[in-house]
Amino acid sequence: MQRYKVTLMYDGTDFAGFQRQPNKRTVESVLTKVINKMAKNPQPAIKIYGSGRTDAGVHALAQVVHFDFPFNIPADNMRKGLNSMLSMDMEVLKVEEVPATFHARYDVSGKRYLYRMDMGEFRNPFKRHYTGQWKFPVDLDKINQACADLVGEHDFTSFVASGAQTRTFVRTIYEASCWVDKANNELVFEFYGNGFMYNQVRIMVGVLVEIGSGTRPVHDILRLYEVKDRKQARRTVPAAGLYLKHVYYQGEDPEHPTKLPQRQR
Amino acid sequence: MQRYKVTLMYDGTDFAGFQRQPNKRTVESVLTKVINKMAKNPQPAIKIYGSGRTDAGVHALAQVVHFDFPFNIPADNMRKGLNSMLSMDMEVLKVEEVPATFHARYDVSGKRYLYRMDMGEFRNPFKRHYTGQWKFPVDLDKINQACADLVGEHDFTSFVASGAQTRTFVRTIYEASCWVDKANNELVFEFYGNGFMYNQVRIMVGVLVEIGSGTRPVHDILRLYEVKDRKQARRTVPAAGLYLKHVYYQGEDPEHPTKLPQRQR
Repeated sequence: MQRYKVTLMYDGTDFAGFQRQPNKRTVESVLTKVINKMAKNPQPAIKIYGSGRTDAGVHALAQVVHFDFPFNIPADNMRKGLNSMLSMDMEVLKVEEVPATFHARYDVSGKRYLYRMDMGEFRNPFKRHYTGQWKFPVDLDKINQACADLVGEHDFTSFVASGAQTRTFVRTIYEASCWVDKANNELVFEFYGNGFMYNQVRIMVGVLVEIGSGTRPVHDILRLYEVKDRKQARRTVPAAGLYLKHVYYQGEDPEHPTKLPQRQR
Repeated sequence: MQRYKVTLMYDGTDFAGFQRQPNKRTVESVLTKVINKMAKNPQPAIKIYGSGRTDAGVHALAQVVHFDFPFNIPADNMRKGLNSMLSMDMEVLKVEEVPATFHARYDVSGKRYLYRMDMGEFRNPFKRHYTGQWKFPVDLDKINQACADLVGEHDFTSFVASGAQTRTFVRTIYEASCWVDKANNELVFEFYGNGFMYNQVRIMVGVLVEIGSGTRPVHDILRLYEVKDRKQARRTVPAAGLYLKHVYYQGEDPEHPTKLPQRQR
């Protein structure tokens, strides 16, 4: 038995999210099927464990999963084997042999997300699955002032969708920033924190663009921390613009070694 | 009755090409349906005329069509009306009222195409519908020497797929170039000519990358003109990387006013 850590990219467009669901095409179900086929369908079946879920339509530049495989295959052969069997909207970037103590979900120390927001006047058919859209002028300086309010340990109750299952709404954001990608005419947001709750990034971006366009005060985020009321944040920007960029594990970033309590996202 | 010229962008991924086909979703059929619905389904139905076909999976940054509409609607209202009814993979960029003598196909004086070729080591899930892929090192200078051989009036028999219906294989290319898009790690080809035949651009790009990677002599294109044999060109690069960038009409480019004989593409 060998435990493998797999880093994979996927275009979330044609997946009903990461987590297995009956009769739906999900990242977990596609990957589980391929891995079990490679292992000649052992009983019990091989289970895969992801760093966390991504919602329907959300993309991953580098999602991480682990699983235990009955045979020992060199890591790079495992990568090639998986890629030869996976569909074109998924690509395994890296495979590593890891000790059986490694856990793709419990050992996460942080996650980094990108959000891409098209600023074009018209709906761009080529971006419909890959960005949100914001047509109003924004003040980048105001957005970055607001991003500074996000950094640190805060109670993000106002920034969580009602379906979130978590014991505490306190999370720490290490980095939050926004810049303009001129070549693509996009506003890009990047967040790095110890964990993000259900829809949290999409709700934060919704607040940030409203601040940028002047429909909320620059420091409205400080008020949102206080009121602890999801209804005040209103807008959840589309899943299409969200990318899981990197999953950090214990020891990878010495500056931010924090480990969340087990079984939390 | 008012004739309208419509410039539209589409993501070709989910279309079985431009031309109407029974039981297939094509650009022509989707657009025809929406325009007839806007006109309250007149009898006989309104027909649309495109500048030419694009194949399944080929994209358009600016395709042009015309049609005659029973009512006179201001051009910009027509644009908004169409966009409100069209699916997200199509966007009308511009609508113009034109005289009844304008014809979207017969009046074409030239076309400009782009081809995007990803140079990444691995299959990028986000590019599977939007680029070709070429993993081998290329010599950009060699490709541009070969591009120079494409410019001018030539018999492109060796560069045409067998299904092409045309009376002559002679076409004129005004511009042909290739550069590296570093931000996206892509090789980009651009061609402007008085007309391109079935698969011609995709076959030319196949020859150019082989020249760039040294598997063909730099001036092999001169030989291909002579042999007039499609089998010598071999490779047709994927439709996914091809974009119709601009359609030129009579008088638009004074340097290249050439009009093809009627009923040719």
